[in-house]
Amino acid sequence: MMDFSGYDVGYDIPALPGMAEAAVQTPCLVLDLDALERNILKMGDAARALGVRHRVHGKMHKSVDVALLQMRLGGACGVCCQKVSEAEAFVRGGIMDVLVSNQVTDLAKIDRLARLVLRGARVIVCVDDLSNVANLSAAALRHGVIVECLVEMDVGAGRCGVRGAAAVVALAQAIDAADGLRFAGVQAYQGAMQHLTLFADRKAAVEVAVIEVRAAVAALAAVGLACDIIGGAGTGSYPLEGASGIYNELQCGSYAFMDADYGRVLDQDGRRFDAGVWENALFVLTSVMSHVRADWAVCDAGLKALAVDSGLPVVAGRGQLIYKAASDEHGEMSDPDGILRINDKLRLVPGHCDPTCNLHDWFVGVRGGVVEVVWPISARGKGY
Amino acid sequence: MMDFSGYDVGYDIPALPGMAEAAVQTPCLVLDLDALERNILKMGDAARALGVRHRVHGKMHKSVDVALLQMRLGGACGVCCQKVSEAEAFVRGGIMDVLVSNQVTDLAKIDRLARLVLRGARVIVCVDDLSNVANLSAAALRHGVIVECLVEMDVGAGRCGVRGAAAVVALAQAIDAADGLRFAGVQAYQGAMQHLTLFADRKAAVEVAVIEVRAAVAALAAVGLACDIIGGAGTGSYPLEGASGIYNELQCGSYAFMDADYGRVLDQDGRRFDAGVWENALFVLTSVMSHVRADWAVCDAGLKALAVDSGLPVVAGRGQLIYKAASDEHGEMSDPDGILRINDKLRLVPGHCDPTCNLHDWFVGVRGGVVEVVWPISARGKGY
Repeated sequence: MMDFSGYDVGYDIPALPGMAEAAVQTPCLVLDLDALERNILKMGDAARALGVRHRVHGKMHKSVDVALLQMRLGGACGVCCQKVSEAEAFVRGGIMDVLVSNQVTDLAKIDRLARLVLRGARVIVCVDDLSNVANLSAAALRHGVIVECLVEMDVGAGRCGVRGAAAVVALAQAIDAADGLRFAGVQAYQGAMQHLTLFADRKAAVEVAVIEVRAAVAALAAVGLACDIIGGAGTGSYPLEGASGIYNELQCGSYAFMDADYGRVLDQDGRRFDAGVWENALFVLTSVMSHVRADWAVCDAGLKALAVDSGLPVVAGRGQLIYKAASDEHGEMSDPDGILRINDKLRLVPGHCDPTCNLHDWFVGVRGGVVEVVWPISARGKGY
Repeated sequence: MMDFSGYDVGYDIPALPGMAEAAVQTPCLVLDLDALERNILKMGDAARALGVRHRVHGKMHKSVDVALLQMRLGGACGVCCQKVSEAEAFVRGGIMDVLVSNQVTDLAKIDRLARLVLRGARVIVCVDDLSNVANLSAAALRHGVIVECLVEMDVGAGRCGVRGAAAVVALAQAIDAADGLRFAGVQAYQGAMQHLTLFADRKAAVEVAVIEVRAAVAALAAVGLACDIIGGAGTGSYPLEGASGIYNELQCGSYAFMDADYGRVLDQDGRRFDAGVWENALFVLTSVMSHVRADWAVCDAGLKALAVDSGLPVVAGRGQLIYKAASDEHGEMSDPDGILRINDKLRLVPGHCDPTCNLHDWFVGVRGGVVEVVWPISARGKGY
């Protein structure tokens, strides 16, 4: 349990353990701990049933406490993250198996990455460029450590990663030949299709990815290189990669918290994710602070409290209220029946959980209307 | 000068004073100090020429250091901000004249607001609801202080504020009659038109606001209430409010840093703001970290490093490079001539400065290619 004695409620921190949810200072992030735990248990069961490991994506929540819960309760084998500074935060928090599922190319960042191994962590990083291999090797040698490397494949997202088995093999052989590095497998995350509404569309995209990965793994085997990790998959697709017979490590993030954009996605039975599959555990708690017009209310959560890149938030459990516009510090909502009063509190489901979490310093974990925990968002703003 | 001895470059902080800009860890915010100082001087001159005060909007940068520079170099009379926690950060930083240009309705927040006066600050807040007056008065009496109140008018933005002179007078009289409160004037910011491209459109909107404000001020005078502050105006409109003969306090924020969205706005001579009026002083420094496809580069600044609510960023001084897509940690850009190399650094002009600043913990102030200062973003994340 953290020592909160130095914190000033409302200045440094929105709440303290033991406080009623009604007294929490807004806008802030609230976690429904019951829903969070159910989501984590469900994904742990799913990974076990599929016979694959689950390395939870820490880029979503950036929180040591949430990651530790995912490992303890959900059986996660470790975390992924996207930045060296995130990896540092997780290792400082005691998480000793960390994959940076991204390229690390800056020389100072590479040096920090290698030094994390000195703290006792297993450190894995993705590579998609030959010049990167020599730099990673030099840093590993300088510190006398082993850095594990995955070759990142572009399996349809069109962003980072190499295409085709020949390019994978060439990079893998370079890694294998480099002192201080260990070739550990392939990273094959198809991010572009995770939010496609229809299961069939996501299935078609994963099938392409699986063909690519299978070919690459076979080509690697043909030159004597085995893959410890064949990783990828997100909340929108993990049953497919998990059942592919080739992926062995899932990397889901959003399932734990959910958001309004994932809520619109359908599962294989045509159920909306937020209706039948995953529960909303993350909310932006907000207060009404102006209500001059009878049918229009203004709340205190705008662009600095929630991300709008994937759409505006949804007012949880209050279907008649529609969040219509976000400006820097205000949210405007239609209140056709004029039911809201100043200081009324509402829970908003943000459009996109990852960049919303990155706006805040704390998760206020609530159970039964009482604040049970206040968790620091350990790697908030850690983008270096 | 801050003591940086406890900071770890790349984990806690992107740079240290004295470092070359080329060594700064990305993504981070860079301020061109020469451009910043020129913008601040220019606005100071403009306010003086118009014969009005300038209360700079601290919600934009959330930085004590920038606000102090605006007061010292630009003659600003104080700051505005939107949240009690921002006001606390500014008062802790030694800024003793603070307007919360927003409603403060939560009882705990009202109590904190009143307590700021005990630190020696002049504290001003906006009111648009009668029930708020009694709560503000009770807190001021509890702490034995005077809280100054502006009646917020809705002069066309349709968000917070009351409409029409009669409603303004009713609220002002309630404030005037309440113990512990002082009626200080009206807040009349028309935010909805600041970014309209054409000067004539902004002019038409301000003309409506001026008529409303003039009528309210006359009605207040008729009941014996004088306005110390008649405040409003932003970067897109301040010459109009400043010359209106009725507004006496400008509240511009963006002029100091500028952004891509304001860059598209035209002044009265048809010049683009970023060409003839205000210089870009704020940049997101980013590094290329993947370049697998010859005509497509990936940089390390995505949704967690820049706000996209007002459009994607523009690559400064590199017209052939177009930032095409932002995901959580990546920016994708077209590089048709394949001129970029991994680890190349680029300066991006963010679409919208306010929520972009709120993503970061530090401003790296650069002059002549060298880091001169590293300023904390004092009120980052302070939304309570």
